[in-house]
Amino acid sequence: MQRRTFLSGVVPAMAGTTLFPFAPTPLIEKNDAFPGLITREKEPSNLEFPFATLKGRITPNAQFFVRSHFPFPKLDPDVWKLSLTGDVKRAITISYDELRKMPSKTVMATLECAGNGRAKLAPKVKGLLWEQGAVGNAEWTGVPLSALLEKAGLNADVLEIILEGADKGEITEEPRSPGEIRFARSISLKKALEANVLIAYQMNGKDLPIAHGYPVRAIIPGWYGMASIKWLTNIIATSKPFEGYWQTIEYAYWKRQANQPTLTAVTAVEAKAEIARPMLHEIVPAGKPYRIHGAAWCGEKSVIKVEISTDNGLSWQGVKLLDTEIPNVWRLWEFNWHVPSKPSTAGILVRATDSDGHVQPDKHDPDRRTYMVNKTVAMEVEIG
Amino acid sequence: MQRRTFLSGVVPAMAGTTLFPFAPTPLIEKNDAFPGLITREKEPSNLEFPFATLKGRITPNAQFFVRSHFPFPKLDPDVWKLSLTGDVKRAITISYDELRKMPSKTVMATLECAGNGRAKLAPKVKGLLWEQGAVGNAEWTGVPLSALLEKAGLNADVLEIILEGADKGEITEEPRSPGEIRFARSISLKKALEANVLIAYQMNGKDLPIAHGYPVRAIIPGWYGMASIKWLTNIIATSKPFEGYWQTIEYAYWKRQANQPTLTAVTAVEAKAEIARPMLHEIVPAGKPYRIHGAAWCGEKSVIKVEISTDNGLSWQGVKLLDTEIPNVWRLWEFNWHVPSKPSTAGILVRATDSDGHVQPDKHDPDRRTYMVNKTVAMEVEIG
Repeated sequence: MQRRTFLSGVVPAMAGTTLFPFAPTPLIEKNDAFPGLITREKEPSNLEFPFATLKGRITPNAQFFVRSHFPFPKLDPDVWKLSLTGDVKRAITISYDELRKMPSKTVMATLECAGNGRAKLAPKVKGLLWEQGAVGNAEWTGVPLSALLEKAGLNADVLEIILEGADKGEITEEPRSPGEIRFARSISLKKALEANVLIAYQMNGKDLPIAHGYPVRAIIPGWYGMASIKWLTNIIATSKPFEGYWQTIEYAYWKRQANQPTLTAVTAVEAKAEIARPMLHEIVPAGKPYRIHGAAWCGEKSVIKVEISTDNGLSWQGVKLLDTEIPNVWRLWEFNWHVPSKPSTAGILVRATDSDGHVQPDKHDPDRRTYMVNKTVAMEVEIG
Repeated sequence: MQRRTFLSGVVPAMAGTTLFPFAPTPLIEKNDAFPGLITREKEPSNLEFPFATLKGRITPNAQFFVRSHFPFPKLDPDVWKLSLTGDVKRAITISYDELRKMPSKTVMATLECAGNGRAKLAPKVKGLLWEQGAVGNAEWTGVPLSALLEKAGLNADVLEIILEGADKGEITEEPRSPGEIRFARSISLKKALEANVLIAYQMNGKDLPIAHGYPVRAIIPGWYGMASIKWLTNIIATSKPFEGYWQTIEYAYWKRQANQPTLTAVTAVEAKAEIARPMLHEIVPAGKPYRIHGAAWCGEKSVIKVEISTDNGLSWQGVKLLDTEIPNVWRLWEFNWHVPSKPSTAGILVRATDSDGHVQPDKHDPDRRTYMVNKTVAMEVEIG
């Protein structure tokens, strides 16, 4: 097994890639071990995918954005156990070997950080200032969560499933955490029973990299990344709505209910299209065709259309959606732009529409706080 | 009616008191209109009762602590309406005249601010630094909330009753409010149906002072003061737990449930005894008897006993509880101290025990954040 190799000094997830020709310790400890990513924070490690480098539908592991709230836990898969407790008929504990012997499934899913695009908010806000690249798409292999829940047997009153990681620490800035806490999040029982919700141990066919939750993480397709708990150790069935730090203090927004703003956990991903190329202030040759391209995703919904404007939002036209539709997965798109022959500047915008008819807005709703930022933003390029 | 007088220029609640011999405008607008109180914040008005001046069981209106989050709303009782909507059979609207014509009830209740004692926390914390005097006791007259709920007829699935005031504004410090918000809070249906929960228009036999919610406020005996919504205008029955700003961002603490800290609204008052005299660093005559006195309260629970230590917590003995027991009302207490004859210093502590056996702790539980501060604190005095 690859983890034997790991214990003898080679990081299994990175074995065979040319981007990471080094020993495992720096990969765990140091962020400069990620040359293909933009550092947004050194410790804990927060690294952004340079979206302009988007090439294919699958993001290579080494280029997948890293969002962490605490130092990476170092878990030994020979010792690691996953416990499933709470409001269940039989509390169970599963070893890494046992998990890997269960019937597995591979699911493609796009993960986007709930704060992706936050750098676009004005005035500047608190929090990691992600540009466009706190998003990536991979194939994940693991055991459906529903299979584990079935093993334990849920009681009739279960409402939510809490997922808890081994990553822990104390938030000492206001609003403070209640001492040392683990990263934890709940998902609705309905979501937990979806066939594509995985307890995953592989990413693009390799064992999970440390940065992505080795040995085991959750994958909650269609929800923002914060729900896909990395370094997963505990699953807890509960009959009460979970009001943990990471869905009240962080990753929560104001939902209006009966005219009252009520603090609500961030869950499903909103519609979004992003431009990979051209880049901001890129000089585009005048009078020649230019292939504008990028990706678009709508969380649990389908991408119905992506429109583009090359005149700062005055007129819009459809782009070509590439690839086939896969639930919870982004679609690459392209648009062949006939660049004007006269040197000038152009503001390029894109917007996605989801299968519920939601179109990306042109303003950020402050009720969303600094999450779910999907307003359209003009990208200015030079024609010359 | 007194409000006619109000409209002609005399504040009804203050009429007849000698402490407030001035015109109404300064009382509404300026905090120096409260000579008997300690200013903790000028705007919005936050004023503390100097606890050392505790004399009787009832706190006079002019000495009752003021906690406000926004400027006092100026409500005209001829225009003011109370609406009861939401998950009810018949939405109703009640005028001030109609409310005052309904069968009324007078209830004595102690109100304590959830942040009372916050100044005792070390290191210094954010928030208003209340010492001992964000607490007071008054007789409130009004209509039981249950009578209004009965008028409207609750649907079977009602879980909570939201109370909303007319006081509003925007919190622009982090964590920000979702734009302009009103002060609002929910109480459980169980609490709402308690016979002593009032929609009150009088305080100690006078119309409510502006600072205390004129024309109408809620009184939720046994809960911290934040639930007793002032300037009340809306009552909303709801089948969903209310997660408004004032019970998630503010006035919420970390309750441990199944090993998980979950953000929970502050509700019932914890056990507390406070010393009025001697004051901190007061010089107490050596070798003579001294009457230590104060008050003790335990929210919805009874005060079972109050103990005192005059040797910095080494030994404890019971104090004498004065007055009769009244639910949700503080009890004054006294202790005749035989002051040592040798000049020195002494650390005096008191602690209350409630009818559930809870004793005041000697440390503040950080899970409570900066609320429900009821740890015992040695008050040092000089013997000389």
